[in-house]
Amino acid sequence: MYLVGAGPGAKDLISLRGQQVLQQAEVVIYDYLVDREVLEHVNPQAELICCDQFGKRQPQEGSFDSQVKVNSAMVKFAKKGKLVVRLKNGDPFIFGRVQEEIEALLKNRIEFEVIPGITAATAAACFSGIPLTSRKISSSVIYLSGQQAKGKKLAIDWCSISKNETIVLYMGVQNIHRIAQELIKHGKPAHTAVAAVSHAGRITQRTVVSTLG
Amino acid sequence: MYLVGAGPGAKDLISLRGQQVLQQAEVVIYDYLVDREVLEHVNPQAELICCDQFGKRQPQEGSFDSQVKVNSAMVKFAKKGKLVVRLKNGDPFIFGRVQEEIEALLKNRIEFEVIPGITAATAAACFSGIPLTSRKISSSVIYLSGQQAKGKKLAIDWCSISKNETIVLYMGVQNIHRIAQELIKHGKPAHTAVAAVSHAGRITQRTVVSTLG
Repeated sequence: MYLVGAGPGAKDLISLRGQQVLQQAEVVIYDYLVDREVLEHVNPQAELICCDQFGKRQPQEGSFDSQVKVNSAMVKFAKKGKLVVRLKNGDPFIFGRVQEEIEALLKNRIEFEVIPGITAATAAACFSGIPLTSRKISSSVIYLSGQQAKGKKLAIDWCSISKNETIVLYMGVQNIHRIAQELIKHGKPAHTAVAAVSHAGRITQRTVVSTLG
Repeated sequence: MYLVGAGPGAKDLISLRGQQVLQQAEVVIYDYLVDREVLEHVNPQAELICCDQFGKRQPQEGSFDSQVKVNSAMVKFAKKGKLVVRLKNGDPFIFGRVQEEIEALLKNRIEFEVIPGITAATAAACFSGIPLTSRKISSSVIYLSGQQAKGKKLAIDWCSISKNETIVLYMGVQNIHRIAQELIKHGKPAHTAVAAVSHAGRITQRTVVSTLG
């Protein structure tokens, strides 16, 4: 069984290893966010299952029934001896909510391999032409979720976050105004450049550069 | 001309797009860190140039002659109309020291495209089985350079850094003891897990998990 990063959207931004296991897979369980063109790599004989059919997941909620159903489906097909791929957008280990799935696999003694992918932050940076780090300007980059799980212990410490150099927000559109306010309140200059790229893999033209303020 | 991320080391962890331009390239200028097996994708007719031949770069130095020579080589071959690939380990925009090269290309009006790659942090996480983020534990991950350019304005603010959730150190082996001391001094518990993976792309067994203390 494989947990595979589909990359940022374009068909040719998945890794060769990722493509290979999609071609060999018998069952592919994919997130609704995965781009349709990436699914073209999948063997036409394979069973394609979109996680949406288990009910839509709510990122703000602490737990959800649909995750249990995804876990059950993975375990069921793997126990039948099928070559199962769990396909996730970007990289499975960056905001891929993979913890519960790994725990289910370990609990059921199902062997798995994780295949990394290109995450949205670096694809967006490459297509906008703005490096995430730069030897003389920024020696760090932080990826931060713009949404928090309800059950999560730590609240975001905006004072510390605002002291970081390059900041990349994932899932930040919904709360972008509040986040900008917090960053400015805690010391980020309002003229800090903000770059947003929609659908990084395919659309290289839609780079929007504005400021926080 | 293409700036391409080679990925974390294994031949099959480059993107399909990256592989395709390596197959088409007439000149490939690669960093000495790029794994030899990734170079097997390069068209045998192409000219392969290792940056080492321009002199070894010193990450601590503010500027270096060899970078100027790399820039000149890129510009020279591109102006001759050659299909040039500048190949960098991991992702070109994460600690890829690409700023000077982009400036040289822009100055000489040479069109270029950047092809992202899988960076070491996410490959190491995937092979060690430890997600970089987790919905209920960590909603951020910071990539931090363990070495600083001499000419860089900001010093590392360890107080803020230590408040981050998941911390990934790049180029940190040389200063690991000092970094661990700083993190503990500023509040990270000494039992914080530290995972190190050598040569993430190929060796999946050598995960070393210890603690900061």
